[in-house]
Amino acid sequence: MGNPWNVPVGGRWKAVERKLRVGEVALRCVICGLAVLVAALVGTDTQTRRIVYLERKAKFTDMKASVFLVIFNGIAACYSLIQGLRCIVNVTKGSVLLNKPFAWLIFLCDQVMAYVSVAAVAASAQSGLLAQFGQPELQWMKLCDLYRGFCIKAGCGLAIAFVVTSCILILSCISAFNLFRLYGNNKR
Amino acid sequence: MGNPWNVPVGGRWKAVERKLRVGEVALRCVICGLAVLVAALVGTDTQTRRIVYLERKAKFTDMKASVFLVIFNGIAACYSLIQGLRCIVNVTKGSVLLNKPFAWLIFLCDQVMAYVSVAAVAASAQSGLLAQFGQPELQWMKLCDLYRGFCIKAGCGLAIAFVVTSCILILSCISAFNLFRLYGNNKR
Repeated sequence: MGNPWNVPVGGRWKAVERKLRVGEVALRCVICGLAVLVAALVGTDTQTRRIVYLERKAKFTDMKASVFLVIFNGIAACYSLIQGLRCIVNVTKGSVLLNKPFAWLIFLCDQVMAYVSVAAVAASAQSGLLAQFGQPELQWMKLCDLYRGFCIKAGCGLAIAFVVTSCILILSCISAFNLFRLYGNNKR
Repeated sequence: MGNPWNVPVGGRWKAVERKLRVGEVALRCVICGLAVLVAALVGTDTQTRRIVYLERKAKFTDMKASVFLVIFNGIAACYSLIQGLRCIVNVTKGSVLLNKPFAWLIFLCDQVMAYVSVAAVAASAQSGLLAQFGQPELQWMKLCDLYRGFCIKAGCGLAIAFVVTSCILILSCISAFNLFRLYGNNKR
Protein backbone atom coordinates (compact mmCIF):
# COMPACT_ATOMS: atom_id res chain seq x y z
CA MET A 1 0.00 0.00 0.00
CA GLY A 2 3.05 2.25 0.32
CA ASN A 3 3.43 2.13 -3.47
CA PRO A 4 2.48 5.62 -4.78
CA TRP A 5 1.20 4.05 -8.03
CA ASN A 6 -1.50 2.10 -6.24
CA VAL A 7 -4.92 3.59 -5.72
CA PRO A 8 -5.89 2.38 -2.26
CA VAL A 9 -8.64 -0.22 -2.10
CA GLY A 10 -11.35 -0.75 0.47
CA GLY A 11 -12.03 2.09 2.95
CA ARG A 12 -9.63 4.67 1.50
CA TRP A 13 -10.90 3.93 -2.01
CA LYS A 14 -14.14 5.77 -1.31
CA ALA A 15 -12.23 8.89 -0.19
CA VAL A 16 -10.16 8.93 -3.41
CA GLU A 17 -13.32 8.41 -5.44
CA ARG A 18 -15.05 11.31 -3.70
CA LYS A 19 -12.04 13.61 -4.24
CA LEU A 20 -11.98 12.66 -7.92
CA ARG A 21 -15.67 13.47 -8.31
CA VAL A 22 -15.33 16.81 -6.51
CA GLY A 23 -12.33 17.60 -8.74
CA GLU A 24 -14.40 16.70 -11.79
CA VAL A 25 -17.20 19.09 -10.73
CA ALA A 26 -14.68 21.87 -10.08
CA LEU A 27 -12.99 21.35 -13.47
CA ARG A 28 -16.30 21.34 -15.33
CA CYS A 29 -17.35 24.58 -13.60
CA VAL A 30 -14.01 26.24 -14.42
CA ILE A 31 -14.29 25.13 -18.05
CA CYS A 32 -17.85 26.45 -18.30
CA GLY A 33 -16.91 29.89 -16.96
CA LEU A 34 -13.69 30.28 -18.94
CA ALA A 35 -15.21 28.99 -22.19
CA VAL A 36 -17.94 31.66 -21.94
CA LEU A 37 -15.18 34.24 -21.37
CA VAL A 38 -13.21 33.05 -24.43
CA ALA A 39 -16.33 33.10 -26.64
CA ALA A 40 -17.24 36.61 -25.41
CA LEU A 41 -13.68 37.98 -25.77
CA VAL A 42 -12.97 36.61 -29.23
CA GLY A 43 -16.57 36.85 -30.49
CA THR A 44 -16.77 40.60 -29.81
CA ASP A 45 -13.26 41.33 -31.11
CA THR A 46 -13.30 44.01 -33.79
CA GLN A 47 -11.24 47.09 -34.64
CA THR A 48 -11.65 49.83 -37.25
CA ARG A 49 -8.66 51.81 -38.53
CA ARG A 50 -8.75 54.85 -40.80
CA ILE A 51 -5.73 54.96 -43.11
CA VAL A 52 -5.69 58.36 -44.88
CA TYR A 53 -9.15 58.32 -46.52
CA LEU A 54 -9.63 54.53 -46.39
CA GLU A 55 -11.50 52.83 -43.56
CA ARG A 56 -10.43 49.28 -42.78
CA LYS A 57 -12.00 46.94 -40.28
CA ALA A 58 -10.72 43.74 -38.67
CA LYS A 59 -13.37 41.33 -37.39
CA PHE A 60 -12.95 37.95 -35.73
CA THR A 61 -14.90 36.43 -38.63
CA ASP A 62 -12.03 37.32 -40.98
CA MET A 63 -10.16 34.38 -39.48
CA LYS A 64 -11.96 31.08 -39.88
CA ALA A 65 -9.94 29.65 -36.97
CA SER A 66 -11.35 32.32 -34.61
CA VAL A 67 -14.89 31.46 -35.68
CA PHE A 68 -14.10 27.79 -34.95
CA LEU A 69 -12.69 28.79 -31.54
CA VAL A 70 -15.78 30.84 -30.62
CA ILE A 71 -18.24 28.11 -31.72
CA PHE A 72 -16.26 25.38 -29.96
CA ASN A 73 -16.06 27.36 -26.72
CA GLY A 74 -19.80 28.00 -26.83
CA ILE A 75 -20.45 24.28 -27.21
CA ALA A 76 -17.85 23.46 -24.50
CA ALA A 77 -19.59 25.85 -22.06
CA CYS A 78 -23.01 24.23 -22.63
CA TYR A 79 -21.57 20.69 -22.47
CA SER A 80 -19.64 21.45 -19.27
CA LEU A 81 -22.73 22.96 -17.67
CA ILE A 82 -24.81 19.84 -18.37
CA GLN A 83 -22.01 17.48 -17.26
CA GLY A 84 -21.30 19.63 -14.19
CA LEU A 85 -24.95 19.40 -13.13
CA ARG A 86 -24.85 15.62 -13.61
CA CYS A 87 -21.70 15.41 -11.46
CA ILE A 88 -23.22 17.58 -8.72
CA VAL A 89 -26.31 15.34 -8.64
CA ASN A 90 -23.99 12.29 -8.41
CA VAL A 91 -21.88 13.81 -5.60
CA THR A 92 -24.88 14.90 -3.52
CA LYS A 93 -26.67 11.58 -4.03
CA GLY A 94 -23.40 9.78 -3.35
CA SER A 95 -23.99 7.39 -6.23
CA VAL A 96 -21.05 5.81 -8.06
CA LEU A 97 -20.72 5.49 -11.82
CA LEU A 98 -20.78 1.76 -12.46
CA ASN A 99 -22.96 1.76 -15.56
CA LYS A 100 -20.70 0.80 -18.46
CA PRO A 101 -22.70 2.16 -21.44
CA PHE A 102 -23.07 5.51 -19.65
CA ALA A 103 -19.37 5.59 -18.73
CA TRP A 104 -18.57 4.84 -22.39
CA LEU A 105 -20.80 7.72 -23.51
CA ILE A 106 -19.13 10.19 -21.14
CA PHE A 107 -15.69 8.89 -22.08
CA LEU A 108 -16.33 9.28 -25.82
CA CYS A 109 -17.85 12.77 -25.44
CA ASP A 110 -14.93 13.91 -23.26
CA GLN A 111 -12.42 12.48 -25.74
CA VAL A 112 -14.10 14.26 -28.67
CA MET A 113 -14.17 17.52 -26.68
CA ALA A 114 -10.47 17.13 -25.80
CA TYR A 115 -9.33 16.54 -29.38
CA VAL A 116 -11.56 19.22 -30.92
CA SER A 117 -10.38 21.63 -28.24
CA VAL A 118 -6.72 20.95 -29.08
CA ALA A 119 -7.51 21.34 -32.79
CA ALA A 120 -9.31 24.68 -32.23
CA VAL A 121 -6.49 26.09 -30.12
CA ALA A 122 -3.79 24.85 -32.54
CA ALA A 123 -5.54 26.33 -35.59
CA SER A 124 -6.11 29.63 -33.76
CA ALA A 125 -2.51 29.72 -32.57
CA GLN A 126 -1.35 29.17 -36.15
CA SER A 127 -3.57 32.02 -37.37
CA GLY A 128 -2.39 34.18 -34.48
CA LEU A 129 1.27 33.58 -35.35
CA LEU A 130 0.56 34.48 -38.99
CA ALA A 131 -1.20 37.69 -37.85
CA GLN A 132 1.67 38.56 -35.49
CA PHE A 133 4.66 37.76 -37.73
CA GLY A 134 3.20 37.44 -41.22
CA GLN A 135 4.79 35.13 -43.78
CA PRO A 136 6.94 37.30 -46.05
CA GLU A 137 7.87 34.37 -48.37
CA LEU A 138 4.17 34.01 -49.23
CA GLN A 139 3.39 37.74 -49.31
CA TRP A 140 1.12 37.36 -46.29
CA MET A 141 1.68 40.55 -44.33
CA LYS A 142 1.57 40.86 -40.55
CA LEU A 143 -1.57 42.50 -39.19
CA CYS A 144 -0.84 43.18 -35.54
CA ASP A 145 1.11 46.39 -36.23
CA LEU A 146 -2.05 47.80 -37.79
CA TYR A 147 -4.67 46.26 -35.50
CA ARG A 148 -2.94 46.31 -32.10
CA GLY A 149 -6.08 46.31 -29.93
CA PHE A 150 -7.67 43.55 -32.00
CA CYS A 151 -4.61 41.34 -31.64
CA ILE A 152 -4.21 41.91 -27.89
CA LYS A 153 -7.84 40.93 -27.26
CA ALA A 154 -7.54 37.86 -29.51
CA GLY A 155 -4.27 36.92 -27.76
CA CYS A 156 -5.96 37.09 -24.33
CA GLY A 157 -8.80 34.93 -25.64
CA LEU A 158 -6.30 32.40 -26.98
CA ALA A 159 -4.38 32.31 -23.68
CA ILE A 160 -7.59 31.55 -21.76
CA ALA A 161 -8.51 28.95 -24.40
CA PHE A 162 -5.19 27.23 -23.58
CA VAL A 163 -6.28 26.99 -19.92
CA VAL A 164 -9.70 25.63 -20.98
CA THR A 165 -7.98 22.99 -23.14
CA SER A 166 -5.66 21.97 -20.29
CA CYS A 167 -8.68 21.47 -18.00
CA ILE A 168 -10.48 19.44 -20.69
CA LEU A 169 -7.38 17.22 -21.11
CA ILE A 170 -7.28 16.47 -17.37
CA LEU A 171 -11.03 15.70 -17.49
CA SER A 172 -10.59 13.30 -20.39
CA CYS A 173 -8.03 11.37 -18.28
CA ILE A 174 -10.48 11.26 -15.34
CA SER A 175 -13.27 9.91 -17.54
CA ALA A 176 -10.88 7.32 -19.06
CA PHE A 177 -10.03 6.26 -15.51
CA ASN A 178 -13.73 6.11 -14.57
CA LEU A 179 -14.47 3.92 -17.59
CA PHE A 180 -11.54 1.53 -17.79
CA ARG A 181 -11.27 0.70 -14.11
CA LEU A 182 -14.69 -0.95 -14.59
CA TYR A 183 -12.79 -3.51 -16.69
CA GLY A 184 -10.28 -4.24 -13.96
CA ASN A 185 -9.73 -7.91 -13.40
CA ASN A 186 -8.16 -8.42 -10.01
CA LYS A 187 -8.74 -12.15 -10.06
CA ARG A 188 -5.82 -12.85 -12.38
CA MET B 1 -21.66 -12.40 -20.06
CA GLY B 2 -24.04 -11.57 -22.87
CA ASN B 3 -23.62 -7.86 -22.15
CA PRO B 4 -21.58 -6.41 -25.02
CA TRP B 5 -20.10 -3.77 -22.65
CA ASN B 6 -18.39 -6.41 -20.52
CA VAL B 7 -14.91 -7.55 -21.35
CA PRO B 8 -15.04 -11.26 -20.60
CA VAL B 9 -13.13 -12.42 -17.57
CA GLY B 10 -11.25 -15.64 -16.98
CA GLY B 11 -10.46 -17.80 -20.03
CA ARG B 12 -11.77 -15.48 -22.75
CA TRP B 13 -10.01 -12.53 -21.14
CA LYS B 14 -6.64 -13.80 -22.32
CA ALA B 15 -7.89 -13.99 -25.93
CA VAL B 16 -9.15 -10.40 -25.82
CA GLU B 17 -5.86 -9.28 -24.28
CA ARG B 18 -3.86 -11.04 -26.99
CA LYS B 19 -6.01 -9.48 -29.74
CA LEU B 20 -5.52 -6.05 -28.20
CA ARG B 21 -1.75 -6.48 -28.11
CA VAL B 22 -1.60 -7.73 -31.70
CA GLY B 23 -3.78 -4.74 -32.69
CA GLU B 24 -1.40 -2.44 -30.84
CA VAL B 25 1.61 -3.85 -32.72
CA ALA B 26 -0.21 -3.49 -36.06
CA LEU B 27 -1.23 0.12 -35.31
CA ARG B 28 2.30 1.08 -34.24
CA CYS B 29 3.75 -0.45 -37.44
CA VAL B 30 1.17 1.38 -39.60
CA ILE B 31 1.94 4.68 -37.82
CA CYS B 32 5.68 4.18 -38.28
CA GLY B 33 5.36 3.57 -42.03
CA LEU B 34 2.83 6.31 -42.73
CA ALA B 35 4.65 8.90 -40.59
CA VAL B 36 7.83 8.32 -42.62
CA LEU B 37 5.74 8.77 -45.78
CA VAL B 38 4.24 12.06 -44.51
CA ALA B 39 7.65 13.41 -43.49
CA ALA B 40 9.11 12.44 -46.88
CA LEU B 41 6.16 13.83 -48.90
CA VAL B 42 5.89 17.17 -47.10
CA GLY B 43 9.61 17.52 -46.36
CA THR B 44 10.59 17.28 -50.03
CA ASP B 45 7.73 19.49 -51.25
CA THR B 46 8.99 22.39 -53.34
CA GLN B 47 7.99 24.10 -56.57
CA THR B 48 9.61 26.83 -58.65
CA ARG B 49 7.56 29.05 -60.95
CA ARG B 50 8.88 31.59 -63.47
CA ILE B 51 6.55 34.57 -63.81
CA VAL B 52 7.74 36.70 -66.76
CA TYR B 53 11.34 37.40 -65.67
CA LEU B 54 10.83 36.71 -61.96
CA GLU B 55 11.56 33.30 -60.44
CA ARG B 56 9.49 32.39 -57.38
CA LYS B 57 9.88 29.31 -55.25
CA ALA B 58 7.52 27.69 -52.74
CA LYS B 59 9.15 25.50 -50.10
CA PHE B 60 7.57 23.59 -47.24
CA THR B 61 9.66 25.70 -44.84
CA ASP B 62 7.65 28.78 -45.90
CA MET B 63 4.84 27.44 -43.72
CA LYS B 64 5.82 26.96 -40.10
CA ALA B 65 2.94 24.48 -39.68
CA SER B 66 4.42 22.19 -42.36
CA VAL B 67 7.79 22.25 -40.60
CA PHE B 68 5.99 21.28 -37.37
CA LEU B 69 4.18 18.48 -39.24
CA VAL B 70 7.42 17.09 -40.72
CA ILE B 71 9.30 17.20 -37.40
CA PHE B 72 6.37 15.65 -35.50
CA ASN B 73 5.99 12.83 -38.03
CA GLY B 74 9.72 12.11 -37.83
CA ILE B 75 9.47 11.84 -34.05
CA ALA B 76 6.24 9.78 -34.30
CA ALA B 77 7.96 7.30 -36.65
CA CYS B 78 10.90 6.80 -34.27
CA TYR B 79 8.63 6.56 -31.23
CA SER B 80 6.33 4.04 -32.93
CA LEU B 81 9.28 1.94 -34.01
CA ILE B 82 10.60 1.71 -30.44
CA GLN B 83 7.14 1.04 -28.98
CA GLY B 84 6.35 -1.45 -31.74
CA LEU B 85 9.52 -3.42 -30.94
CA ARG B 86 8.58 -3.39 -27.24
CA CYS B 87 5.10 -4.71 -28.11
CA ILE B 88 6.50 -7.46 -30.36
CA VAL B 89 8.85 -8.58 -27.55
CA ASN B 90 5.84 -8.61 -25.17
CA VAL B 91 3.63 -10.58 -27.57
CA THR B 92 6.29 -13.18 -28.38
CA LYS B 93 7.28 -13.56 -24.71
CA GLY B 94 3.58 -13.65 -23.79
CA SER B 95 4.15 -11.30 -20.85
CA VAL B 96 1.35 -9.01 -19.64
CA LEU B 97 1.79 -5.37 -18.73
CA LEU B 98 1.04 -5.25 -15.00
CA ASN B 99 3.75 -2.81 -13.98
CA LYS B 100 1.98 0.44 -13.04
CA PRO B 101 4.86 2.96 -13.37
CA PHE B 102 5.67 1.54 -16.82
CA ALA B 103 1.98 1.61 -17.86
CA TRP B 104 1.82 5.23 -16.66
CA LEU B 105 4.90 6.10 -18.73
CA ILE B 106 3.44 4.54 -21.89
CA PHE B 107 0.05 6.16 -21.22
CA LEU B 108 1.57 9.62 -20.78
CA CYS B 109 3.80 9.31 -23.86
CA ASP B 110 0.85 8.10 -25.97
CA GLN B 111 -1.35 10.94 -24.69
CA VAL B 112 1.30 13.55 -25.52
CA MET B 113 1.76 12.02 -28.98
CA ALA B 114 -2.02 12.06 -29.56
CA TYR B 115 -2.50 15.70 -28.60
CA VAL B 116 0.62 16.96 -30.40
CA SER B 117 -0.47 14.98 -33.46
CA VAL B 118 -3.92 16.61 -33.43
CA ALA B 119 -2.29 20.03 -32.97
CA ALA B 120 0.12 19.47 -35.89
CA VAL B 121 -2.64 18.32 -38.23
CA ALA B 122 -4.99 21.15 -37.19
CA ALA B 123 -2.34 23.83 -37.68
CA SER B 124 -1.37 22.34 -41.06
CA ALA B 125 -5.01 22.10 -42.13
CA GLN B 126 -5.48 25.76 -41.20
CA SER B 127 -2.41 26.74 -43.25
CA GLY B 128 -3.60 24.54 -46.10
CA LEU B 129 -7.04 26.20 -46.13
CA LEU B 130 -5.38 29.63 -46.22
CA ALA B 131 -3.16 28.52 -49.11
CA GLN B 132 -6.15 27.07 -50.96
CA PHE B 133 -8.70 29.83 -50.44
CA GLY B 134 -6.67 32.81 -49.20
CA GLN B 135 -8.21 35.38 -46.84
CA PRO B 136 -9.22 38.36 -48.99
CA GLU B 137 -10.33 40.45 -45.96
CA LEU B 138 -6.75 40.31 -44.66
CA GLN B 139 -5.06 40.65 -48.09
CA TRP B 140 -3.64 37.15 -47.78
CA MET B 141 -3.79 35.81 -51.30
CA LYS B 142 -4.40 32.21 -52.26
CA LEU B 143 -1.33 30.31 -53.41
CA CYS B 144 -2.62 27.08 -54.87
CA ASP B 145 -3.51 28.59 -58.25
CA LEU B 146 0.14 29.51 -58.66
CA TYR B 147 1.77 26.46 -57.03
CA ARG B 148 -0.56 23.65 -58.04
CA GLY B 149 1.94 20.77 -57.78
CA PHE B 150 3.18 22.02 -54.42
CA CYS B 151 -0.34 22.15 -53.00
CA ILE B 152 -1.36 18.70 -54.30
CA LYS B 153 1.71 17.10 -52.72
CA ALA B 154 1.12 18.94 -49.43
CA GLY B 155 -2.56 17.94 -49.52
CA CYS B 156 -1.64 14.25 -49.94
CA GLY B 157 0.78 14.54 -47.03
CA LEU B 158 -1.94 16.13 -44.89
CA ALA B 159 -4.47 13.42 -45.80
CA ILE B 160 -2.02 10.69 -44.73
CA ALA B 161 -1.24 12.67 -41.58
CA PHE B 162 -4.98 12.50 -40.77
CA VAL B 163 -4.78 8.69 -40.97
CA VAL B 164 -1.67 8.67 -38.76
CA THR B 165 -3.48 10.85 -36.20
CA SER B 166 -6.53 8.56 -36.20
CA CYS B 167 -4.30 5.55 -35.50
CA ILE B 168 -2.53 7.44 -32.70
CA LEU B 169 -5.92 8.33 -31.15
CA ILE B 170 -7.00 4.66 -31.11
CA LEU B 171 -3.62 3.75 -29.56
CA SER B 172 -4.04 6.34 -26.83
CA CYS B 173 -7.38 4.71 -25.90
CA ILE B 174 -5.71 1.28 -25.80
CA SER B 175 -2.93 2.53 -23.52
CA ALA B 176 -5.52 4.25 -21.26
CA PHE B 177 -7.34 0.91 -21.07
CA ASN B 178 -4.08 -0.93 -20.31
CA LEU B 179 -3.30 1.51 -17.50
CA PHE B 180 -6.62 2.15 -15.79
CA ARG B 181 -7.89 -1.42 -15.71
CA LEU B 182 -4.95 -2.03 -13.33
CA TYR B 183 -6.92 0.15 -10.88
CA GLY B 184 -10.06 -1.95 -11.21
CA ASN B 185 -11.59 -2.83 -7.90
CA ASN B 186 -13.89 -5.80 -8.34
CA LYS B 187 -14.24 -6.35 -4.61
CA ARG B 188 -16.79 -3.52 -4.22
